[in-house]
Amino acid sequence: KKKSVSSQVIYGNRGMSLEQEINASNQYYLTHGIAVVHKKPIPVQIVDVNYPKRSAAVIKEAYFKTPSTTDYNGVYKGKYIDFEAKETKNKTSFPLKNFHEHQVQHMRACVAQGGICFTIIKFTQTQEIFLLPARVLFDYWQQQATGRKSIPKQAIIQAGYAIQYHINPTVPYLDAVDKFMATIQ
Amino acid sequence: KKKSVSSQVIYGNRGMSLEQEINASNQYYLTHGIAVVHKKPIPVQIVDVNYPKRSAAVIKEAYFKTPSTTDYNGVYKGKYIDFEAKETKNKTSFPLKNFHEHQVQHMRACVAQGGICFTIIKFTQTQEIFLLPARVLFDYWQQQATGRKSIPKQAIIQAGYAIQYHINPTVPYLDAVDKFMATIQ
Ligand SMILES: [Mg+2]
Ligand SMILES: [Mg+2]
Repeated sequence: KKKSVSSQVIYGNRGMSLEQEINASNQYYLTHGIAVVHKKPIPVQIVDVNYPKRSAAVIKEAYFKTPSTTDYNGVYKGKYIDFEAKETKNKTSFPLKNFHEHQVQHMRACVAQGGICFTIIKFTQTQEIFLLPARVLFDYWQQQATGRKSIPKQAIIQAGYAIQYHINPTVPYLDAVDKFMATIQ
Repeated sequence: KKKSVSSQVIYGNRGMSLEQEINASNQYYLTHGIAVVHKKPIPVQIVDVNYPKRSAAVIKEAYFKTPSTTDYNGVYKGKYIDFEAKETKNKTSFPLKNFHEHQVQHMRACVAQGGICFTIIKFTQTQEIFLLPARVLFDYWQQQATGRKSIPKQAIIQAGYAIQYHINPTVPYLDAVDKFMATIQ
């Protein structure tokens, strides 16, 4: 039912990662009073900190921790929204190994609470971006032990919502969220 | 209209900070399917990382960044909730210097989007905890240049919601959130 956006004229800034594009879009949404969505900081375990005189504290030893949630969450039209942003160089499918079990679990818990949960997937080869509802990811996630290890791009086109690159915000994903929310209310 | 909880029998674990008590309560809410609320990681600017062979990456130089949001957010009954947890040793008031301008701005933006925003304030001397709606903080914040630099405890008792220590969850703050939500719907 939906068309691929590969014929679109406007492309993303090819030097920017999807994450940077979304961060810039979130900044636009924030300053225009449209939504409040932030990327969560990278979780680190801090082991050693120096407090030099007359200058800022320096973390001298720390380790990356596995995140227990998705990267983005916030509020839009009173609703809780929660998502992960992922890029792939693949052309015909999106590999499930891009997700961790704990992220999928987190999304399940959020959906159970009535949150609006999804993934923003970018096919970097064609600069196509889609919002994919979390429930679709759950279906593929559940069958991966015995079935395929990726989500076919055709399924993403069918069950997802294309996001067209725009001038400002660069990735107007809330347009896709509006369409998605309309189906679950 | 509300009574102080200082006469309550159950006290918090005096070795635990309010943050630890809330984190434990969030874990309870999560595992019981009641709400999904997480503390955000401390934001750090990573400058130098070592990647030793056969062991985990080590962050060798990093700096603390000023958080641009509050510490906690999540979803409860489909609603976005967002709050900051603060303790004070003061007995009769809560000093406004416990907040940063950017946190108050963030709470204003969330309220404008229909989020449920508040502060959880603990008076450590008496082990009393209150949920204080963000709008009350905004009123005091706005007058502080010319007026008082703290929120009187009496105002917190009047405009806030007492949270009674409990066995599990230790700090059942969602009971107070229910009462608060009932006033804004
Ligand atoms: Mg991520
Ligand atoms: Mg804090």
